[in-house]
Amino acid sequence: MNKIKVGIIQMAVGISKKANLSHAAELIKKAAKEGGEILVLPEMFVCPYSKKYFRDFSEEIDENNIEDTSESLKLLTNLARELKVYIICGSIPEMHNGNLYNTSYALNDSGAMIGKYRKIHLFNINIKNKVSFRESDTFACGDKAVTFDTKWGKMGTVICFDIRFNELIRELALDDAKIVFVPAVFNPLTGKDHWDLLFRSRAVDNQIFTIGCCSARNPDLIKYTTYGHSLAVNPWGNIIEQIPNNDEDILMVQLDLDEIDSVRQQLPVLSSIKKDL
Amino acid sequence: MNKIKVGIIQMAVGISKKANLSHAAELIKKAAKEGGEILVLPEMFVCPYSKKYFRDFSEEIDENNIEDTSESLKLLTNLARELKVYIICGSIPEMHNGNLYNTSYALNDSGAMIGKYRKIHLFNINIKNKVSFRESDTFACGDKAVTFDTKWGKMGTVICFDIRFNELIRELALDDAKIVFVPAVFNPLTGKDHWDLLFRSRAVDNQIFTIGCCSARNPDLIKYTTYGHSLAVNPWGNIIEQIPNNDEDILMVQLDLDEIDSVRQQLPVLSSIKKDL
Repeated sequence: MNKIKVGIIQMAVGISKKANLSHAAELIKKAAKEGGEILVLPEMFVCPYSKKYFRDFSEEIDENNIEDTSESLKLLTNLARELKVYIICGSIPEMHNGNLYNTSYALNDSGAMIGKYRKIHLFNINIKNKVSFRESDTFACGDKAVTFDTKWGKMGTVICFDIRFNELIRELALDDAKIVFVPAVFNPLTGKDHWDLLFRSRAVDNQIFTIGCCSARNPDLIKYTTYGHSLAVNPWGNIIEQIPNNDEDILMVQLDLDEIDSVRQQLPVLSSIKKDL
Repeated sequence: MNKIKVGIIQMAVGISKKANLSHAAELIKKAAKEGGEILVLPEMFVCPYSKKYFRDFSEEIDENNIEDTSESLKLLTNLARELKVYIICGSIPEMHNGNLYNTSYALNDSGAMIGKYRKIHLFNINIKNKVSFRESDTFACGDKAVTFDTKWGKMGTVICFDIRFNELIRELALDDAKIVFVPAVFNPLTGKDHWDLLFRSRAVDNQIFTIGCCSARNPDLIKYTTYGHSLAVNPWGNIIEQIPNNDEDILMVQLDLDEIDSVRQQLPVLSSIKKDL
């Protein structure tokens, strides 16, 4: 029970919601067939990462009536149940009380919703003549760190820009999360300098596994480029495996959760935290 | 006033305190001659990093009477005043009320003590058949993050293992430290996987400069090996310059403090922290 096969789905997202959902289903089936037990989709796997689309693609989700309120979760809960896999559902633009959230849902292998996380740290960037974007103009931010129980123990999800804030990942690790999943649409400009660094450092800082699932470049959407390079990092901070580019691909990676205790015994970082600091 | 030349003194430490002090003085004079305005010594520059020596080499320092109570600080305050340089005095085994602390002092260019920091996170490690050490068996730990004012703005010091704890570096950055100095005796085993990573990630996490000053390998002390690789990292997380090995050397590096505001404007990480998390 301490080994897990994770399928990291670096999916290309297009401008048709219907097509995105059927494409996600196809990739999920493929990853399940390859033995994936937990499958991860990227941030905004249903919707191009652009202000233009978020509102139109959003869903006002009633968690007690997913069938009638969420096209996306209806599909994914059915797939989780049928294929008997856990799914970390990337993220969906979620409408709630007039506010838009960037929200990730976790489903267990019976198709039940076991976690719901609203992105806390919204991505703003302003690099002259290169890239400018303010997620906070469109989205409201969440206010709760979230872990969820699985048959392998606790896990947590954060979204993209969140990975820069160790206080959030720290909270998950102190709540005993063994793996932190990070659906993302990382920018290539910051990605080249920071993507590997952030996943490796969050793993080392907290002696956990980190999983980054970035969307793929969509060759049909020229303006919509992402860094890709989805990866899995072990609690010593080494990259276990990584997709070497931003092409669509599925990375299957086996994690041995016993490595967590072993690393924490060798180098007692987590137990040396001064909580009164 | 926004450019500083820092001299990072990767010094080899031996078993004679007197020799260590005169060697430190020689290297400080050399770095000052090369234009260094702030000079940094490694952790325990007066004393081999070994349980065997800490107590014998310790000093019970009366800050109002350094002349008579601290051989080490007497030398360094005189040098700071004479050479008109700031000195981050690595660290000294400091005896206080029967407790031993791993303490770093900061001196300004008039030789005044402007900061005193006692290492908070003590280094424990236990890697089977390779390395085992428990700093916490010998030392008591400090309980206060410390910043100090300089003519270039605020700065802070932490010591070696502390660099693994972003909550501490975060506190310094939020208190407006622009540079965090880290005297160290890093272990080669963890150094190879974690040294660069930690300095780069603390710089990126907090959008500050980080300076690592590790002691050098002393060829006369076979058991006493350190990682070396002293370095300076900019607020974007790139290594500005680094000593490529663990040989004794002085790294002179120019920092442009304006880079901090520029990086924070481009990528507003520090201002996006959720303090209520």
